[in-house]
Amino acid sequence: MAIEINAGLSSIAKVKRTLGLYDLSKLPQFEVVAVLECAGNRRDGLKAIKPVNGVTWGAGTASNARWGGCRLRDVLVAAGVPADLSDPFYANPRHVEFAAYGEVTDDEQYTSSIPLEWVMNPLNMVLVATEMNGMPLLRDHGFPARIVAPGIIGARWVKWLKYIHVQDREADGYYQQRDYKILPPIAEANNCEEFWPRFPALMELNIQSAICRPAADECLQIGKPYHVRGYALTGGGRAVDRVEVSLDGGSTWNLADMYTIQAKADSRSGQRDWSAKHWAWVLWSFRIESVPPNCTIASRAWDLGGNTQPSTAVWNYRGVMNNAVFHVHPPTTSSVLSRL
Amino acid sequence: MAIEINAGLSSIAKVKRTLGLYDLSKLPQFEVVAVLECAGNRRDGLKAIKPVNGVTWGAGTASNARWGGCRLRDVLVAAGVPADLSDPFYANPRHVEFAAYGEVTDDEQYTSSIPLEWVMNPLNMVLVATEMNGMPLLRDHGFPARIVAPGIIGARWVKWLKYIHVQDREADGYYQQRDYKILPPIAEANNCEEFWPRFPALMELNIQSAICRPAADECLQIGKPYHVRGYALTGGGRAVDRVEVSLDGGSTWNLADMYTIQAKADSRSGQRDWSAKHWAWVLWSFRIESVPPNCTIASRAWDLGGNTQPSTAVWNYRGVMNNAVFHVHPPTTSSVLSRL
Repeated sequence: MAIEINAGLSSIAKVKRTLGLYDLSKLPQFEVVAVLECAGNRRDGLKAIKPVNGVTWGAGTASNARWGGCRLRDVLVAAGVPADLSDPFYANPRHVEFAAYGEVTDDEQYTSSIPLEWVMNPLNMVLVATEMNGMPLLRDHGFPARIVAPGIIGARWVKWLKYIHVQDREADGYYQQRDYKILPPIAEANNCEEFWPRFPALMELNIQSAICRPAADECLQIGKPYHVRGYALTGGGRAVDRVEVSLDGGSTWNLADMYTIQAKADSRSGQRDWSAKHWAWVLWSFRIESVPPNCTIASRAWDLGGNTQPSTAVWNYRGVMNNAVFHVHPPTTSSVLSRL
Repeated sequence: MAIEINAGLSSIAKVKRTLGLYDLSKLPQFEVVAVLECAGNRRDGLKAIKPVNGVTWGAGTASNARWGGCRLRDVLVAAGVPADLSDPFYANPRHVEFAAYGEVTDDEQYTSSIPLEWVMNPLNMVLVATEMNGMPLLRDHGFPARIVAPGIIGARWVKWLKYIHVQDREADGYYQQRDYKILPPIAEANNCEEFWPRFPALMELNIQSAICRPAADECLQIGKPYHVRGYALTGGGRAVDRVEVSLDGGSTWNLADMYTIQAKADSRSGQRDWSAKHWAWVLWSFRIESVPPNCTIASRAWDLGGNTQPSTAVWNYRGVMNNAVFHVHPPTTSSVLSRL
């Protein structure tokens, strides 16, 4: 395999390089624990309102892994892109476009792009990843190399990397321009063409939480304790501030316990560090002391930017970024019945 | 006046410098158009639910200006802080603490801090500002120098700068540790002490919109057209994606026209640039063709990260970050009556 790095901008030296796995392995290697979430996660909640264009996902299209590889920043610096964000070069916004090997249905190839300035901030940890959880990438995860862009929607984490281009505009392909945007509710299949150019391509993830246990159709025993469990995440490196659980349809909310992956502590004070960027999801749990007969459970999260989840979902044509408060209404049974 | 810059960390050269206005004027000068919003903006909406600790602000504690001065980044680099975010120095999170001249009620002095890595990213445009709208700062705006931290809550934009410290922990003063946090609803005056250390200090602004016209008690004429006007803003350099207006209590939403300050266009394609960071507020308007007799108007905004405003406000003890959907219910009168 070879990745073609094209930084052929008139304002900098024209550079076109072809890199193989061996070249990537020679660059400094980094690891980042980061959540990957599809913008269509929880599309089912929007499809329940009105038909949408997209696969009917539940809350399962989010996952967390330890990604390894070199920083895309270092690859681009080697190709001649200025390392210093203070350089006048950055006065003009640019994008880094990625293309994937493989066939796609709606375009000649899969392309997507993210802002160059985001990539060049070393703290954002955008990787040309070759490993996942300490192993070479599996084919399904983008072997031999993929983009890992923490805090940004999964559609930009391009797999099976074919080329990387630095350019003065967004990718103009289907998946950047005609997909992965939140169109306003008045945009539908028959009139969406006029709306695509007017709305921006999604980048950062929004604040999200989901309940994983009880799972669908899991039966709770009335009067018994139960541990509700789920995940929460947000975009842009912001921390998840807290997760709350309601057992009364949203009238009152209780604090869930949060388990942060790779939580850091200030070495001197022992306090939790709130200043680093946060890329991993947060796992949480909440103990119900005694399951009531007619049990509804809801979760919502808050991020460090003061954003929280809307109480109800707002439909959009592509069914993306649904982050409404999460509700489950599990069947319940008495403990006597469950023993039959 | 003099600002004391203390970067006395053991891991870098101990540096302590005293800077005056003349020194600041010798550094490269920058301008940024940025909105300043108090975290307590719209506290009135939370106070209406339950008493809060704080001044009862409406939606008027947000404003937009052109700020001028030198970058705090350049001040710190001159004091010995590494310019390159790739430096191993940045593996450990640090904060920049600011103190203000002047007396405050709850502490010895007003102090506040923001993450060093945020400050050192030149694209974040954190300034030691000495000008506002092309004029030297007025006393009320922080003369002779203040911090301008675009995309971050106003409480961190410290005025009447006394010192700047680079340190390995947050400011430990009252206004960082006992204020400007979103506590969970179960935290109240009698038990808030246990919650302060458990929740992080607010940084980035959340997605917000407000209706400015009709103003309070402004009377609309039934059957006449009317232009609803307001502002929208968000944090972290994200763009406001769109603003929507509802005239039916939130059942249906219409797109408002947006007027972005300093909107940039891609010079080659003429398309709106979605990749730059956004610090200014957005002004918007929506034309009602014929004002109905019982008129309710609501606004909500969406940001590029897919976050929107919750439909109802969630109370917190300090009454901060209220960004619920904005509602007005102006009195109406027939046009005949209004001419009497």
